[in-house]
Amino acid sequence: MCQLLGMNCNTPTDICFSFEGFAARGGKTDDHRDGWGIAFFEGKGYRILLDDKPSVISPIAELVRRYPIHSTHVIAHIRKATQGKIALENCHPFRRELWGRYWVFAHNGDLPGFQPEGMKFYQAVGNTDSEKAFCLILDELRKYFPYGKPSLEQLYSLLNDISKTLASQGIFNYLLSDGEHFFAHCSTKLSYIVRQAPFAAAHLIDEDVTVDFSELTTPSDRVAVIATTPLTDNEIWTQIQPGELLVFQDGLPHKFV
Amino acid sequence: MCQLLGMNCNTPTDICFSFEGFAARGGKTDDHRDGWGIAFFEGKGYRILLDDKPSVISPIAELVRRYPIHSTHVIAHIRKATQGKIALENCHPFRRELWGRYWVFAHNGDLPGFQPEGMKFYQAVGNTDSEKAFCLILDELRKYFPYGKPSLEQLYSLLNDISKTLASQGIFNYLLSDGEHFFAHCSTKLSYIVRQAPFAAAHLIDEDVTVDFSELTTPSDRVAVIATTPLTDNEIWTQIQPGELLVFQDGLPHKFV
Repeated sequence: MCQLLGMNCNTPTDICFSFEGFAARGGKTDDHRDGWGIAFFEGKGYRILLDDKPSVISPIAELVRRYPIHSTHVIAHIRKATQGKIALENCHPFRRELWGRYWVFAHNGDLPGFQPEGMKFYQAVGNTDSEKAFCLILDELRKYFPYGKPSLEQLYSLLNDISKTLASQGIFNYLLSDGEHFFAHCSTKLSYIVRQAPFAAAHLIDEDVTVDFSELTTPSDRVAVIATTPLTDNEIWTQIQPGELLVFQDGLPHKFV
Repeated sequence: MCQLLGMNCNTPTDICFSFEGFAARGGKTDDHRDGWGIAFFEGKGYRILLDDKPSVISPIAELVRRYPIHSTHVIAHIRKATQGKIALENCHPFRRELWGRYWVFAHNGDLPGFQPEGMKFYQAVGNTDSEKAFCLILDELRKYFPYGKPSLEQLYSLLNDISKTLASQGIFNYLLSDGEHFFAHCSTKLSYIVRQAPFAAAHLIDEDVTVDFSELTTPSDRVAVIATTPLTDNEIWTQIQPGELLVFQDGLPHKFV
């Protein structure tokens, strides 16, 4: 299995604090040692840093912990290999282009025996069930909406259907974004917290680190952090319900049902 | 305009030395200040580091200069914007998936008025002529070979035709790789050097740095470095002829005509 970390905010924010706790799970406080990756959207572009080394010893992860990259849409992943060898092509987040936008995807779970067929546009490069599922999602989206990105309601509805079908084949928690919308699907385990004014101090579970957000924010800032399990021990995280698909915009979750 | 740097070798090699001289051109010895990027293949996977800040001050470029990432196929680019704003989505190298492999592309030149139409599979995310040209190349490759990567001879022949057509519309020097093959097309200016035993010392043009490769290599190593203009002042670089497409394998250039 793996762990997911995501962030969506109304103003570009760095993820150094959350990533510090999260990265500790890649070999220190937990055993997700088989690679890691993080993608930051900046407008329609993204940068991605990844490594097939454990996040606790990776010099590239060290850069992410120390160098504040500001972004409104971030997806990160630490890997404990279930399917697919330990290799760069199997490190999440995966990324493809659809409708002239980059899409970034990371998965926590396992889809045993999942072998999609009849893929028309997207093909996996590595050999994980996760990348295959991502390709299937994009293939379906493209088949239904060949001419461009549909309305959020239409997109949500189709993505919800595809996610249910895939989740019926195993465990399928995922984060997906194109830098405009941020989707979080819970199949078994995924939590989030929305931080907004009045801001307070937060203390990591995995490292003895506290940050007082009231010193770093303006009153209009709003930041949602999404993670497989809560990252802090003095805040109240909301568990997303199994089977639920949320879409975050400007740091707030929505669903369309 | 921009500058290109590529490397292809028969054994994974770091590019720290060449990148040090190259990155200096991004604001110190030359004025390519509008972003930079570098992609390293590791097997079928790749990592990419990029920034819309000048390479001489980017902390991520500093990581590339200091942290030896070993790869057999590397493509790097420093940008001086001609078309498209300074933004992450306009930073080369661009990347897409085709035939279950990642393809990475960087361009030096300018294709004024280039507006490809009838693109079926790939769409530009940013607004550079370079990314549009890359999408057109992949679109054509995919149209002609829908079922998978053809033989190198077939691929070379089609790519040669597409490159000639595009080069007729402006300046079209480029580097393109899928981690298996490494293509270098010269429209106006592109040079390479093949380093192999007996190895000697090399001295950068852009920084006063010398490396003695005989201390760092084994006799069977072979490394080709490709660049817009030579990076060293005590070695003999070969200029690729305008209109010529080379494919590098294991550090050696080939062409099929």
